[in-house]
Amino acid sequence: MGAALVAGVDVGGTKVLAVVADERLRVLGRARLGTRRGERGVVDTVVRAVTEAAHRAGVAPAALAGVGVGVPGLVDASAGRVSHAVNLGLHDQPTELAGGLRERLGVPVVVENDVNAAALGAHTLRPVGGDLALLSIGTGLAAGLVLGGRLHRGARGAAGEIGHVPVDPAGMACSCGQRGCLETIASGAALAAAWTPGAGHPATSPWQAAAAGDAAAAAAVERFSAGVAAAVRLLVLTWDVETVVLAGGVTEVGRPLLEAVRAALRRQEATAPLMAALGLSGRVELLGRRAPVAALGAAWMARGRLVDDLPSAQEVS
Amino acid sequence: MGAALVAGVDVGGTKVLAVVADERLRVLGRARLGTRRGERGVVDTVVRAVTEAAHRAGVAPAALAGVGVGVPGLVDASAGRVSHAVNLGLHDQPTELAGGLRERLGVPVVVENDVNAAALGAHTLRPVGGDLALLSIGTGLAAGLVLGGRLHRGARGAAGEIGHVPVDPAGMACSCGQRGCLETIASGAALAAAWTPGAGHPATSPWQAAAAGDAAAAAAVERFSAGVAAAVRLLVLTWDVETVVLAGGVTEVGRPLLEAVRAALRRQEATAPLMAALGLSGRVELLGRRAPVAALGAAWMARGRLVDDLPSAQEVS
Repeated sequence: MGAALVAGVDVGGTKVLAVVADERLRVLGRARLGTRRGERGVVDTVVRAVTEAAHRAGVAPAALAGVGVGVPGLVDASAGRVSHAVNLGLHDQPTELAGGLRERLGVPVVVENDVNAAALGAHTLRPVGGDLALLSIGTGLAAGLVLGGRLHRGARGAAGEIGHVPVDPAGMACSCGQRGCLETIASGAALAAAWTPGAGHPATSPWQAAAAGDAAAAAAVERFSAGVAAAVRLLVLTWDVETVVLAGGVTEVGRPLLEAVRAALRRQEATAPLMAALGLSGRVELLGRRAPVAALGAAWMARGRLVDDLPSAQEVS
Repeated sequence: MGAALVAGVDVGGTKVLAVVADERLRVLGRARLGTRRGERGVVDTVVRAVTEAAHRAGVAPAALAGVGVGVPGLVDASAGRVSHAVNLGLHDQPTELAGGLRERLGVPVVVENDVNAAALGAHTLRPVGGDLALLSIGTGLAAGLVLGGRLHRGARGAAGEIGHVPVDPAGMACSCGQRGCLETIASGAALAAAWTPGAGHPATSPWQAAAAGDAAAAAAVERFSAGVAAAVRLLVLTWDVETVVLAGGVTEVGRPLLEAVRAALRRQEATAPLMAALGLSGRVELLGRRAPVAALGAAWMARGRLVDDLPSAQEVS
């Protein structure tokens, strides 16, 4: 048998991205398709995306050593089950996603929450190790955590649900039922609510308008950036990870976002010696805009599972 | 050689408690002395407390297999160094506490932050494992974290510094330079500032006054309990530990504190389905009032170091 190829899939509310990679996670083929909703739609889209990416890598899907899938919602990784993935139309019964995909693809499948998969993907992309949190700023806000090279999911898979930490008793009502959650300040939805563009990309247009002198857009961007900085501070004061990586749709804006968040962190450092000692502004990073980080993390999981499943030398001899 | 005995020491601002325990952490001797401040004072007090506890256990201090010390402030555990322990009069240069004690006692010494030591101690006292956070509510507020049976210190020893997470932009100024930190609501100092007793124990008298019908005391106690509940929610939303153990001077009040915090958590659960799903009120526990938890955790560290230092069977044969 030659080098084992694996596939990693990032299932989003609008797009499904699949990559096929070798053991060192070099991408040999990729495919991107529009997401179809519901259990059958999601399974179909993933199967088609994996098949297309495999063909581009020059192999049949059945020749893959494994497939990893990152998916939004509550994921029971050990059972391969997904629930509460409202964006995918999977809201009622838990969906047996790993089982359904395994049946169609004929290869082992692992499933993980998409933010966790992205955190693992960011970990694989970094030249140096160290504990890492990936702060996913999309419609909502959540973090994934890699400690000692391994995912930390928590006792009930809720580790990193920092979007629902209340930080302002006088803040806006949150969809979760609480008030002033971090997500009401530092999320794509919060930024869109604070400044509605006439046209243009929802993630980048407030920044463009702010740069062009629109005072309301500038205020919205500053409030949002301060919220992201508060999320970074929270991650350092709780987990004390070495690095916080910003990711998610909102990071499409690129360096202006990173600079605004670093400026807000420097203001925190100027206020409080503890924050200065923690070096907050030096710990935050931004991923390359087009890095397929959740798909890579999912591929890494598929690969890791293979390694775990290999019999040890002891058992073989 | 017989069973190895170890000592564990909890160095507080007013008292130093030493225990001498066997390999299974059964306490065979203990001693409690008033703390003398400054480097020399702290070293002297620890040496005297360990000596007394060892004699009560029927051994000479030099016969101990190791000594663990839990101490407030910033601790560099690998170097055995302590700094910023203002309550102990160790504020300037880092103090070589492990080195100083080793010289005087003639046995190996390990040093750890007292909240971390208490988290380890709580872990050893629980019949079942599972990730655990110890929420230490003393003059300030901080948490220690045990994940997979091991202490999680973070990249710079700042993991669990949740007292300085701001939760109210309109809140009180905090000694750290920020505003509305969790510590300005959920700490012994915050409770004392909100309701000043004429006499009595500072931790228990607000609760007694509230129970006796004092409305101002009742309001202070409710605000404080809601703050502790917010700290528990924060620990679950970030780390998702199975259990949050309340500890520290403020827990002297006992069950009324636990019941007030659980009631506040049930109010959170009634507001937000996510909080109900996380089962916050069922995850919080209170240690027995007199459990020498930081000293036991320090003893566990001394014992663990011995285990780490033992050559493996492979190396011996």
